[in-house]
Amino acid sequence: MNDEAQSPREARRGREARRAARAQRAAVSVPYISRNIPVADILSAEGLEIIERNAETILAEVGIEFRDYPTALKLLKDAGCDIQGERVRFPRGLARKLIATAPSDYVQHARNPERSVHIGGKDTVFAPVYGSPFVHDLDKGRRYGTIEDFQNFVKLAYASPFMHHSGGTVCEPVDLPVNKRHLEMVYAHMRYSDKAYMGSVTHPDRAQDTVNLSKILFGEEFVANNTVCTSLINANSPMVWDNTMLGAAEVYARDNQATIITPFILSGAMSPVTVAGTLAQVLAEVLAGVSFTQLVRPGAPVIFGTFVSTLSMQSGAPTFGTPEAALAIYGAGQLARRCNLPFRTGGSLCASKIPDAQAAYESAQTLVPTLHAGANFVLHAAGWMEGGLASSYEKFVMDCDQLGMMHVLAKGIDLSENGQGMEAFREVPPGGHFLGCAHTQANFETAFYRSSVADNNSVEQWEAEGRLDAPQRANALWKKMLAEYEAPPIDPGVDEALRDYIERKKASMPDATH
Amino acid sequence: MNDEAQSPREARRGREARRAARAQRAAVSVPYISRNIPVADILSAEGLEIIERNAETILAEVGIEFRDYPTALKLLKDAGCDIQGERVRFPRGLARKLIATAPSDYVQHARNPERSVHIGGKDTVFAPVYGSPFVHDLDKGRRYGTIEDFQNFVKLAYASPFMHHSGGTVCEPVDLPVNKRHLEMVYAHMRYSDKAYMGSVTHPDRAQDTVNLSKILFGEEFVANNTVCTSLINANSPMVWDNTMLGAAEVYARDNQATIITPFILSGAMSPVTVAGTLAQVLAEVLAGVSFTQLVRPGAPVIFGTFVSTLSMQSGAPTFGTPEAALAIYGAGQLARRCNLPFRTGGSLCASKIPDAQAAYESAQTLVPTLHAGANFVLHAAGWMEGGLASSYEKFVMDCDQLGMMHVLAKGIDLSENGQGMEAFREVPPGGHFLGCAHTQANFETAFYRSSVADNNSVEQWEAEGRLDAPQRANALWKKMLAEYEAPPIDPGVDEALRDYIERKKASMPDATH
Repeated sequence: MNDEAQSPREARRGREARRAARAQRAAVSVPYISRNIPVADILSAEGLEIIERNAETILAEVGIEFRDYPTALKLLKDAGCDIQGERVRFPRGLARKLIATAPSDYVQHARNPERSVHIGGKDTVFAPVYGSPFVHDLDKGRRYGTIEDFQNFVKLAYASPFMHHSGGTVCEPVDLPVNKRHLEMVYAHMRYSDKAYMGSVTHPDRAQDTVNLSKILFGEEFVANNTVCTSLINANSPMVWDNTMLGAAEVYARDNQATIITPFILSGAMSPVTVAGTLAQVLAEVLAGVSFTQLVRPGAPVIFGTFVSTLSMQSGAPTFGTPEAALAIYGAGQLARRCNLPFRTGGSLCASKIPDAQAAYESAQTLVPTLHAGANFVLHAAGWMEGGLASSYEKFVMDCDQLGMMHVLAKGIDLSENGQGMEAFREVPPGGHFLGCAHTQANFETAFYRSSVADNNSVEQWEAEGRLDAPQRANALWKKMLAEYEAPPIDPGVDEALRDYIERKKASMPDATH
Repeated sequence: MNDEAQSPREARRGREARRAARAQRAAVSVPYISRNIPVADILSAEGLEIIERNAETILAEVGIEFRDYPTALKLLKDAGCDIQGERVRFPRGLARKLIATAPSDYVQHARNPERSVHIGGKDTVFAPVYGSPFVHDLDKGRRYGTIEDFQNFVKLAYASPFMHHSGGTVCEPVDLPVNKRHLEMVYAHMRYSDKAYMGSVTHPDRAQDTVNLSKILFGEEFVANNTVCTSLINANSPMVWDNTMLGAAEVYARDNQATIITPFILSGAMSPVTVAGTLAQVLAEVLAGVSFTQLVRPGAPVIFGTFVSTLSMQSGAPTFGTPEAALAIYGAGQLARRCNLPFRTGGSLCASKIPDAQAAYESAQTLVPTLHAGANFVLHAAGWMEGGLASSYEKFVMDCDQLGMMHVLAKGIDLSENGQGMEAFREVPPGGHFLGCAHTQANFETAFYRSSVADNNSVEQWEAEGRLDAPQRANALWKKMLAEYEAPPIDPGVDEALRDYIERKKASMPDATH
């Protein structure tokens, strides 16, 4: 196009297009959030002491069961625990001593070094929904997840500038045999994204496959010296660690890979019906689990995980976005910092079956406390629906928009000279308008977070455009993101080696359903 | 029913019904929230000093216009301000000195003394949406508000256990003549609710009518000695106070009635495009407005008001639930506390035209910061939709449910012996279930907040019940609330006197449209 031949109107359009392009670039992804606002502490020092004392009482008097895993019992006995059968009692203070070798923070490397994430301190990393057997979108409704859905969610997480991590089981690819599924899941993260990922935890062998594939992707030596996966180890609450999870945790810890030691609790069923009681249990279960990782390998990176929600006391159904869950999020954050460990909690959780107002209220009522509680690793940050039973395409996109807003909130208030904006007051008189002033113009492109999902137009314009609700707009957005998706480059030799490992491994075993 | 003739199943049903009734009573309204969690401060002391210094610079160098209101100019001149035409410049420090007579908190009396509200300190009072010309419900869509709608919203606010205040212009009753409307609005609050209310501010005479009607309702002497209305005085930002608002503020302050001195700001148009710049302006405008009330009557109760939202820089449309607005909410709360004044901000704000996921995300992204910022008076706490253009019946009910949750969040974590729940751990072994234990049973009815709107059932049950979304469930709820509504009792003589005043006043003037 010849600029000189442009009409003034064309020139204006050109300027606008360039401005739009610059604005687009302003939304370019950052590897993670570095908070510039304080954490919101709701418990006093005295309150924290009460909860820690109670956790020590649980560890010393009730104990924790380490089931079907003699390795753990031996390590814990040697460390000074009292072992009766599979019940492990920790003398007061022992667990706090054992976890002292765990680092307060660590870097999880991504294959694209610009996307490596720092876990801990003032930093917050968002990762997608994890573990849903079903997927949901407006076109096809609710159905079992497939490997294609899995790849789609990996691609959407890769494409979102506000999702820092590729996550793990973004949905369960039910169309693949259970014992081979993990290979294609890990491969999807490695191939369709260049962000950091999580590994398989459903069997120690599958955890080992994750480590082996990571060695192909990053190189043996790099993995020997660096953390390249962070994997989710859930307690079997109350007060049980089982051999599947312990086995996977042992594999990862031995290889210096990170684990998220997480009590998964529906309060009232798997813990006492009160927040303070639940927090004591969370702390006891985390202390026990982290102790085990540190006995396997002192210094292995580990996250203080918390997943607490509540129950409907009428139906027994899990509930999300509730105020008691928010209180648990805040309290757990303080406990994690007290233990000097990185902290995982929260996300965009909801019980709703569809991406409606219930889903959004519940998600925001989880996400805002998650941010204010200083979570360092946020699983389920986008896409979670129906109490974790379904990964929703539309909700993924809507939640990512909320994550974008959290980036701005976490930055706090800019007090630079430009942030103070006193020049604007010198230009605009009382009763005047700031839109045209030099300060506004200079900040025009980056001034406010621009939502991709919200419709802020007049009701007349909104009606003319078809009266779409937020999920309908999100439906168009995820389709556009998938249509425009381009895979990040990968060394063809590495890719071939990954596929070769996977095919050989698959060929070595019959299909199985567990 | 004869209890002795009951079958075991009937007896069980009876127990369940009584249990449900007790649970219902547990949701009985409290007059207001008394916070037990700390406020979330995001600005450092240094940051606050910068913003206050900038506000003083605005007051001293740019000045504030007090338009068409010679009374204000005279009072401010006598107090030491520099007056050039209608531009009032405050020497540095003067405004902070002038506002020192304003009380840090006050009680607004309701005609039912159990519903009087304490404004300030650790307390939070929720009031409904204010000022919408339109109303919206799922059955009839969007339409101009009428006095019937107005009465309906008053009745819904009265019926909600989580709404503490009857509010003011819950919607604009467009079917009544503009100059007589306020009489029926104030009457609706007095007759259909016994909660505290707001007065008319559209003309000093209408403010006087509010005070006069209040004297009939409460008695002359009571009103002379107590605050019985809290009314909304908005600045004409930037840096203008106009004669309508000043006139109403003067009437109320003279009679020792409370006003909410509120810069109403869409950042980027009516203030600089940055949060720190906007906060300096908020403080300057509040200081100027509050100074005026204190010159009218030292000690008149007044609230530090803030309404800040953002603009879409593409379309110029107002946007809500944005992170910049949340930052302004937090910062303004700190400024209000610095001024030792009660604080109004936030609510359940949204730009969405319908009660969809956008509406809910935006509302929660406003409400949670509102609570954490320590707001003492929360206008628009329920029902706000379409950027304040429409009061939504369904959203009113959905938002009230969120307000219920805020009651629980504000309570913080119960650290009593029962809250710690250690007896539960002594009863339930590792791998056990807490649902049946004595501690859970003892706390069964009050354990968790019970949402009236959320559906937490299985997808199968939800489908069997018609696949309703949250607004559809809310639709049934507000209809039920209106159907079951019973007006609070009122002394027939007082009612007659109120009607008599209103009819005489109406007869004294022709209908007018302004």
